[in-house]
Amino acid sequence: MIKLKEVYLDNSATTRVCKAAADEAYRIMTEIWGNPSSLHSKGLEAEHEITNARRIIADSLSASAEEIYFTSGGTEGNNTAVLGAVNALKRRGNRIVTTAIEHSSVYETMQQLEKQGFEVIYLPPDENGCVKKEDIKKSITKDTILVSIMAVNNELGSVQPLSTVKRLITAADSPALFHVDAVQAYMKMPLSPKKYGIDLMTVSGHKIHAPKGVGALYVRKGARIVPLHFGGMQERKLRPGTEAAPLICAMGKAVEVYDKNEAGRIKELNGFFRRVLSETDGIIINSDENCLPYIISFSVPGFRSETLLHFLAERNIFVSSGSACAKGHKSHVLEAMKYDAKRADSTIRISFSDQNNEDDANILVNNLKIAISTLARS
Amino acid sequence: MIKLKEVYLDNSATTRVCKAAADEAYRIMTEIWGNPSSLHSKGLEAEHEITNARRIIADSLSASAEEIYFTSGGTEGNNTAVLGAVNALKRRGNRIVTTAIEHSSVYETMQQLEKQGFEVIYLPPDENGCVKKEDIKKSITKDTILVSIMAVNNELGSVQPLSTVKRLITAADSPALFHVDAVQAYMKMPLSPKKYGIDLMTVSGHKIHAPKGVGALYVRKGARIVPLHFGGMQERKLRPGTEAAPLICAMGKAVEVYDKNEAGRIKELNGFFRRVLSETDGIIINSDENCLPYIISFSVPGFRSETLLHFLAERNIFVSSGSACAKGHKSHVLEAMKYDAKRADSTIRISFSDQNNEDDANILVNNLKIAISTLARS
Repeated sequence: MIKLKEVYLDNSATTRVCKAAADEAYRIMTEIWGNPSSLHSKGLEAEHEITNARRIIADSLSASAEEIYFTSGGTEGNNTAVLGAVNALKRRGNRIVTTAIEHSSVYETMQQLEKQGFEVIYLPPDENGCVKKEDIKKSITKDTILVSIMAVNNELGSVQPLSTVKRLITAADSPALFHVDAVQAYMKMPLSPKKYGIDLMTVSGHKIHAPKGVGALYVRKGARIVPLHFGGMQERKLRPGTEAAPLICAMGKAVEVYDKNEAGRIKELNGFFRRVLSETDGIIINSDENCLPYIISFSVPGFRSETLLHFLAERNIFVSSGSACAKGHKSHVLEAMKYDAKRADSTIRISFSDQNNEDDANILVNNLKIAISTLARS
Repeated sequence: MIKLKEVYLDNSATTRVCKAAADEAYRIMTEIWGNPSSLHSKGLEAEHEITNARRIIADSLSASAEEIYFTSGGTEGNNTAVLGAVNALKRRGNRIVTTAIEHSSVYETMQQLEKQGFEVIYLPPDENGCVKKEDIKKSITKDTILVSIMAVNNELGSVQPLSTVKRLITAADSPALFHVDAVQAYMKMPLSPKKYGIDLMTVSGHKIHAPKGVGALYVRKGARIVPLHFGGMQERKLRPGTEAAPLICAMGKAVEVYDKNEAGRIKELNGFFRRVLSETDGIIINSDENCLPYIISFSVPGFRSETLLHFLAERNIFVSSGSACAKGHKSHVLEAMKYDAKRADSTIRISFSDQNNEDDANILVNNLKIAISTLARS
């Protein structure tokens, strides 16, 4: 049997760990395996490696090392930021502003906060998947304690208008902290928390070729949030527990070796994918041209996402039906977009890394054409 | 310069990652790097590996796979268990029973719960570092919602009396869940949660030659706790977030290859260490003979722990002054033991793995003798 070329187009779900990062994790596991909290030299050498990784992550965000807190990933980062900010400021107000299209780790946390009595404003996306500046402005009041808006939506790639948020918070005389879930944006577009006035920013390792199980939370110097976990002195008590040194150092390495020119190449590749997809009958492209080039959402009305996904997977082409975290559950993002059932139920997300090329686009589209002409319509 | 033999006697702080576990993490990072939540075959193959690791951990606890939830380590496990149980049962009562010698990840969490208005009973240790059955019995009331007692104290090695706790809870007509921090005990003594009537049990990977950043929480089928984090469907919503597949599988491998005869050998080795330590003038052994053989605490009155620790580290001998998590802070455990300042301030903990032998005991004691005869007394 001929082995088909693997076409992995699900890089927003997770990426292949790069060799440099995997090697670094292995080196730390086998050579620098001391407990970073130990007072002896075996501890210090491990702590030194973590300090180095922290500096790399800080540099990548134009932040200082003391503003970086390592977490177990994006979900923990988002939970720590949202719950930590709300718990720190709950005496100053009761209102939280977010969007209807956040990742489930923000969205579900907001639903919990609503149950606890907080007033949560879920800003709706426009037809391009972006919340509107005017809506943000209108929603921030004096008793708003948190504004949490993602940088890039994970299902559509739509880039949210972050640049004015801090000004709007100040103008409203609100004590709110400004949190950004930057998991899909990190390393893929310029995003300096300082420049945007962001207080809290979540990033994750496994979307940028580091292993699963590690991420970082940026906490602006001076911003105070309440920890979710209690224990030792690690991560200045915001995130106690023995540091996941192999993963932390692997994330540092993945950032260090990240190709700074990738975004430009992905933009070109995105253009090619959009062209061949739009030339194919029966496909509607959902992501507009202002979306982050790494993500394209499209629908194939008449064919269920899961059916298409499995059809493609059998041909060694890997895509997503909405967010992997939802695992087949209805997407609240597509619901917020008010797509009709036919369009929502047939949505496919493809997402790129530097390992994709124009061949992948041709293979995808050829197989989509076969699917459209051979699969039974739902 | 002659390279001194490395004598690592700090295995309760962390252990060297075994080759099988490091290799497994590398294999998962480089070959099985799909997102376990993805619906396509790349996701399924990753999920399959996690399922396998879950079964191994479950088997090691004589539990079923659905009772095992992966965490980022012991601190997260303890926090999830304690806060999760209290949040689930807070309408049934206000009282929590624990000990004065818990690990900081339980102890500090209890201090938080006290601030929130819960009544926390901290049972004192006896002169051997164990809480008393009678005290446990007296403290559990009808409105007790959680009993959290560690299996083995991390600073002394003292084994706590767990076998009657469940009966006492039932006898008191209490709705309490029974949580055990088994981080120091796991794989080192027989401890089946089912046999002991334990509802929640925390274990960690990096104390048993798996990498740092992973652990597991046993939750008895039928026991309900409230999650700390919100997001995707992973770990049946108790612990959302993309699974740290490389670490989870490495932990499975570390358990799979764990030498079942190790505990017996460590018991003999412990006897040898105790003998040579007790034959050395100026040393008081704190851990009694009923302690877990993996840990020996001793004091060298007149010499500060940190001074001794650094003196030994310079000679490539690695020990701990109390718990690594406290990083030089005063130990609440030794305080609870009511040691006088001279004894408490000169406490050293040594802890073993299968990589230690009788040579290590001789090297340690020879160097302690040099320390005692050459270092200035504090």
